[in-house]
Amino acid sequence: MTPRTGRHFLQIPGPTNVPDRVLRAMSAPTMDHRGPEFSALTHRLLDGLGPVFGTTGPVVIYPASGTGAWEAALVNTLSPGDRVLSFETGHFSALWREMAGSLGLETATDFVPGDWRHGADPGVLAERLTADKQHAIKAVCVVHNETSTGVASRIPEIRRAMDEAGHPALLLVDTISSLGSIDYRHDEWGVDVTVAGSQKGLMLPPGLSFNAVSDKALAASRTARLPKVFWDWKPVIEANRQGSFPYTPATNLLYGLEEALGMLREEGLPQVFARHARHAAATRAAVRGWGLEVLCLDEREHSGSLTAVLMPDGHDADKLRKIILERFDMSLGAGLGKLSGRVFRIGHLGQIGDLTLAGTLAGVQMGLELAGVPVGTGGLGAALDTLRAE
Amino acid sequence: MTPRTGRHFLQIPGPTNVPDRVLRAMSAPTMDHRGPEFSALTHRLLDGLGPVFGTTGPVVIYPASGTGAWEAALVNTLSPGDRVLSFETGHFSALWREMAGSLGLETATDFVPGDWRHGADPGVLAERLTADKQHAIKAVCVVHNETSTGVASRIPEIRRAMDEAGHPALLLVDTISSLGSIDYRHDEWGVDVTVAGSQKGLMLPPGLSFNAVSDKALAASRTARLPKVFWDWKPVIEANRQGSFPYTPATNLLYGLEEALGMLREEGLPQVFARHARHAAATRAAVRGWGLEVLCLDEREHSGSLTAVLMPDGHDADKLRKIILERFDMSLGAGLGKLSGRVFRIGHLGQIGDLTLAGTLAGVQMGLELAGVPVGTGGLGAALDTLRAE
Amino acid sequence: MTPRTGRHFLQIPGPTNVPDRVLRAMSAPTMDHRGPEFSALTHRLLDGLGPVFGTTGPVVIYPASGTGAWEAALVNTLSPGDRVLSFETGHFSALWREMAGSLGLETATDFVPGDWRHGADPGVLAERLTADKQHAIKAVCVVHNETSTGVASRIPEIRRAMDEAGHPALLLVDTISSLGSIDYRHDEWGVDVTVAGSQKGLMLPPGLSFNAVSDKALAASRTARLPKVFWDWKPVIEANRQGSFPYTPATNLLYGLEEALGMLREEGLPQVFARHARHAAATRAAVRGWGLEVLCLDEREHSGSLTAVLMPDGHDADKLRKIILERFDMSLGAGLGKLSGRVFRIGHLGQIGDLTLAGTLAGVQMGLELAGVPVGTGGLGAALDTLRAE
Amino acid sequence: MTPRTGRHFLQIPGPTNVPDRVLRAMSAPTMDHRGPEFSALTHRLLDGLGPVFGTTGPVVIYPASGTGAWEAALVNTLSPGDRVLSFETGHFSALWREMAGSLGLETATDFVPGDWRHGADPGVLAERLTADKQHAIKAVCVVHNETSTGVASRIPEIRRAMDEAGHPALLLVDTISSLGSIDYRHDEWGVDVTVAGSQKGLMLPPGLSFNAVSDKALAASRTARLPKVFWDWKPVIEANRQGSFPYTPATNLLYGLEEALGMLREEGLPQVFARHARHAAATRAAVRGWGLEVLCLDEREHSGSLTAVLMPDGHDADKLRKIILERFDMSLGAGLGKLSGRVFRIGHLGQIGDLTLAGTLAGVQMGLELAGVPVGTGGLGAALDTLRAE
Repeated sequence: MTPRTGRHFLQIPGPTNVPDRVLRAMSAPTMDHRGPEFSALTHRLLDGLGPVFGTTGPVVIYPASGTGAWEAALVNTLSPGDRVLSFETGHFSALWREMAGSLGLETATDFVPGDWRHGADPGVLAERLTADKQHAIKAVCVVHNETSTGVASRIPEIRRAMDEAGHPALLLVDTISSLGSIDYRHDEWGVDVTVAGSQKGLMLPPGLSFNAVSDKALAASRTARLPKVFWDWKPVIEANRQGSFPYTPATNLLYGLEEALGMLREEGLPQVFARHARHAAATRAAVRGWGLEVLCLDEREHSGSLTAVLMPDGHDADKLRKIILERFDMSLGAGLGKLSGRVFRIGHLGQIGDLTLAGTLAGVQMGLELAGVPVGTGGLGAALDTLRAE
Repeated sequence: MTPRTGRHFLQIPGPTNVPDRVLRAMSAPTMDHRGPEFSALTHRLLDGLGPVFGTTGPVVIYPASGTGAWEAALVNTLSPGDRVLSFETGHFSALWREMAGSLGLETATDFVPGDWRHGADPGVLAERLTADKQHAIKAVCVVHNETSTGVASRIPEIRRAMDEAGHPALLLVDTISSLGSIDYRHDEWGVDVTVAGSQKGLMLPPGLSFNAVSDKALAASRTARLPKVFWDWKPVIEANRQGSFPYTPATNLLYGLEEALGMLREEGLPQVFARHARHAAATRAAVRGWGLEVLCLDEREHSGSLTAVLMPDGHDADKLRKIILERFDMSLGAGLGKLSGRVFRIGHLGQIGDLTLAGTLAGVQMGLELAGVPVGTGGLGAALDTLRAE
Repeated sequence: MTPRTGRHFLQIPGPTNVPDRVLRAMSAPTMDHRGPEFSALTHRLLDGLGPVFGTTGPVVIYPASGTGAWEAALVNTLSPGDRVLSFETGHFSALWREMAGSLGLETATDFVPGDWRHGADPGVLAERLTADKQHAIKAVCVVHNETSTGVASRIPEIRRAMDEAGHPALLLVDTISSLGSIDYRHDEWGVDVTVAGSQKGLMLPPGLSFNAVSDKALAASRTARLPKVFWDWKPVIEANRQGSFPYTPATNLLYGLEEALGMLREEGLPQVFARHARHAAATRAAVRGWGLEVLCLDEREHSGSLTAVLMPDGHDADKLRKIILERFDMSLGAGLGKLSGRVFRIGHLGQIGDLTLAGTLAGVQMGLELAGVPVGTGGLGAALDTLRAE
Repeated sequence: MTPRTGRHFLQIPGPTNVPDRVLRAMSAPTMDHRGPEFSALTHRLLDGLGPVFGTTGPVVIYPASGTGAWEAALVNTLSPGDRVLSFETGHFSALWREMAGSLGLETATDFVPGDWRHGADPGVLAERLTADKQHAIKAVCVVHNETSTGVASRIPEIRRAMDEAGHPALLLVDTISSLGSIDYRHDEWGVDVTVAGSQKGLMLPPGLSFNAVSDKALAASRTARLPKVFWDWKPVIEANRQGSFPYTPATNLLYGLEEALGMLREEGLPQVFARHARHAAATRAAVRGWGLEVLCLDEREHSGSLTAVLMPDGHDADKLRKIILERFDMSLGAGLGKLSGRVFRIGHLGQIGDLTLAGTLAGVQMGLELAGVPVGTGGLGAALDTLRAE
């Protein structure tokens, strides 16, 4: 590879471009995690996280990656053999379901198949729950924003379906690639456990993950029988009251978290969401201008975080990504699972401004041309029209 | 608190003072964890970790704190109800045992009580294992260096006791506060799982942890039935072959790990161990010079990483630590568990030079005097004699 | 101003985007400037600077900005009342001439007027020097790359004109915005003093500046009578032999310099120059695509570092820059001196890759449209054609 | 040299240990020096500098090292042949005087010899000025804190001597190693030009320097005839009104300056001065405890920034410094000029806490013993008594 002559364009759907403010904050000296300064930091962090999740309840911070927070959501609330309903919305929903199975939960009965181009279907959910007269289903797992497809499920409608069915199952939602990018409200939407990670909309490196926990989930945790120690909410929530953690926290990532929360506050969450939506719209305009197809088929479910683009038949997405990496020093997301080679994904989440998006789409356009993909030339121009329009 | 007018002295037994080289390395931009550069980084890290653990086998890196690596060692090798032998060497051995119990292992039968002033007793182990004719004991858990007491157990003798008893139990060793500070050899000493963390001798912030794994442990993992997903070795070891991870790794901490491994290599592991031993000897000389008692009672078991000091009756260690923090901006370790208030701990591990140790001991000496503890004045001088001698 | 939501686009013609590698290098602890490590650093820096200037002679490093290096070139080589020939190529050539006058040099007689759209004219120079039979002209001052106009004077032709006239005047060349961006060869081109700064092609923050010095200039310095202490070459060159400086050097900027020199070496100077030329060509393609006029009128003199663009009559360049700053968080260069309001300048020097340039030109295009400037829409597309072509 | 195993002790009298907060601030991206953000930064800096100099008048910031600010003080206020009175207080007073001579000022007539162990003598000054009936002396140059000797001249008494003589000479004071460390008041003490640098009490790397300017000095600058361009106050003061600079400022060092000014404000200048005085007292207690001699002979003139220590006859200070550097990784200041080899200097200025000072003095004590210098062992203990006392 030729030497890099500028800043790498990291336009995968996460980890995202960590702001240099955050990197600098992370490079402060590690402190005593049992001293008074650390305790004050913990309290500031917990105060700052609530609004981002839209909750006044506890948020558990794990010194671990997002996969761990998936596991935490399950082991804290469920018992061996419990039935879990899940939707086939893409690669990550499949992985989460597979994890549930490995942990001893029953995931075969209540599986809702899908085409990886739509979100979780509230109508199907209503049917399934209504049919479950014995309330054998203990939890409904939904991935808010499917990072593999760029499809955002409609959580409020999911909640409404559950309420209308009068079903007591817990609602567990993965917001790993939506939190801090797409409007989300843990309390208002009646979510029981929200799973999140640091490396996407929160603009941090990977290494922290989160569970926001409802009262109902807390109550469930008191009787849940899956074994747990590291992931156990209880000692964390208790220690957090004194500003401490039951085991050594990832101090320097927490410094970064404080800075990132400050940045979200400065911009304002509504502005953050609007910016992501606007960048997503510009990206879709480019895709249409190239004559290509956005993977997501439902207008109501377009992701604000990323856009997955279908390659025309006979063209390999990974070959395209390789050309773009080597020629323009930009990383794009690969198609995952059954979409491998057929899809590439453009991340437009976290810290990103209009001109970086423009540069990104310029790189995709040039890459498509170099790869010999027959595309219209109006893609970038259409995106700029969107960006310019405000 | 008055404003700090210099560099904080972080002399707890970990997290340790992260070298600024490592902090700078960690502040590089987060990269694509599925790209070719990341893959090359992973291979370099795995190559570099082996010598530090003294192993040619796999080392599993977790994006999690050390407590998680404890859990990983257990859930990968054991099944519900398995009997685990453990020693009461201090606070952390007790926590690890408690974790094993919570995970469904049997820890009551094979518990070896202790006085928190000695390491694991190879003689007692020999008796216990010899008595276990049915080989019902599946694993022996030992904390190499007890961070709560400053006592280092003699792992080679532990191994010999197991060999002489001809007992097939796995040997699981916690090296969280010894790896990179005290001589340790996973392969040569026949350890099956070595548990380590980033925030001590490896000179990194907390957030990474490790399992070094023997062939025998790998074999055991194929039949172990404790549920596991996040901690499962198998997908990590498989993905590592291609330089990737099964879930998002803690990229920026890995940058720091590469730098820290380079620093250990530059200094040379034997020199690193000798330096720690020398600083520990100087610290004990100071303690004796003050007329105080080192907690560790066996000359063969003095820790190179930290020194726990007993307060004279009627004097509160936490009051002393508070005076030292407020007057001299130095953090020392508290007495943990049953040693609370009776012991303070001086960390001298990780990145530390002679003059920082001298400043540390000067701060302890002044603090003892300010706290009204009756101490001899020769402590610091005795330490300097040791430092100057070599 | 709304909060920034991404990385600022600093597309002025310097200071340029300092690579994060360089910023990290600069954040290492300040060291003893009289110790052995510093001495080794100095030698490495001086070894590394030579090839960048194209010289095997001394390069004097000043802990000062570029303006100081202008002054140094004059005061080390000239005496009160000496006649200096200069060209009106733009704002900076005018400032340098004004400085010469303030220092007591005679600058009125040998002034070659210009239109700010061409470089220094070798033909006119030949005439002037030939006419100066008494060799009263002691120095010829040329700005290699006029940062105010984006016009690069042809130094080899200037040299040839001097040689053909058989004139002994010194040739002083300002390469502040060309060194490390546009091909330059101090020795081969027979330059006597090359003036440079840190904050452009060298990819550093401002604060360092340089004089590369020929033997002839050194000889002149022995009899030059303008007063000088801080700028005096002699003590610097002498101290440099031992790896030291006669006054406290700007240590942390020197750390950055070492890193930046390493980056130039990794990419290779020919590749660095080719990249700048290619980016300049793409930018001019965009300007033509918009139907606007590049300020530089001579194809042989287009700058690789920046492009100055003329606004159509009735349109204010500063209003455009304000729109672009506020809407797209990009800084562009203003028109300077008599070009104020009529010109804006796009910097494409230092650390910059294709997609950052594409984003830059997208921002200019959108800004022009928002400012109501009548422009063709093909600008960005034409630039991408250039970038894609390789 | 063996690899460093901890943090270097940089205990020279400057450059000092730059706080990591300042280094992090300096690593922010370089910004447009003509944009609105930079302008706001400039105003904040100028507002913050005033109190540190004790002035409400202009402070000129140079992107240059301290030697440049010496030159600036002279060329802005004086004309060729002007008589300048100076004191032989040490190496730096001699260098400043030598500079004045090189610039064309008359420095032979009004030179007050000294023994390098006392400050400028107000009594002698009174005599000299009284004798100068024609007021031929145009400026009095005093180094507030002689970095080569650790002697602080009594500026208020110098001022009083001038006032009592009714002499109109300007008072130029070098505070390079006192500003931000030793009490100093430009306005109240009637100083006309205060010269300062970034790399000592201001806790920054080298690369910035300063002139604080009285009304009288400003008036003098209007008629001063030494040539000047780079150092000229006028364009700087004018541009500063709009928050800009007449040439490219050293942006990233200015970021550091803002952070450092914030740190001084947080601690409080009186506390900063008291801390330095206390550390100086502790250091002198150590020197006396070793049975060595402090170079400074007058109790009223002990420096708060550094302590110069005389070696016993037959012992080489540079050999001692080499032992301490190699064995304990600590840099101390050498004897300069005629004190070479006879004196070593301990810097205790800038960012430093009690335990770093204790470590420093421990290193000196061990070094003295290793070098075979006959010293008493009570040095460090006496210093700790001082540190503990308050």
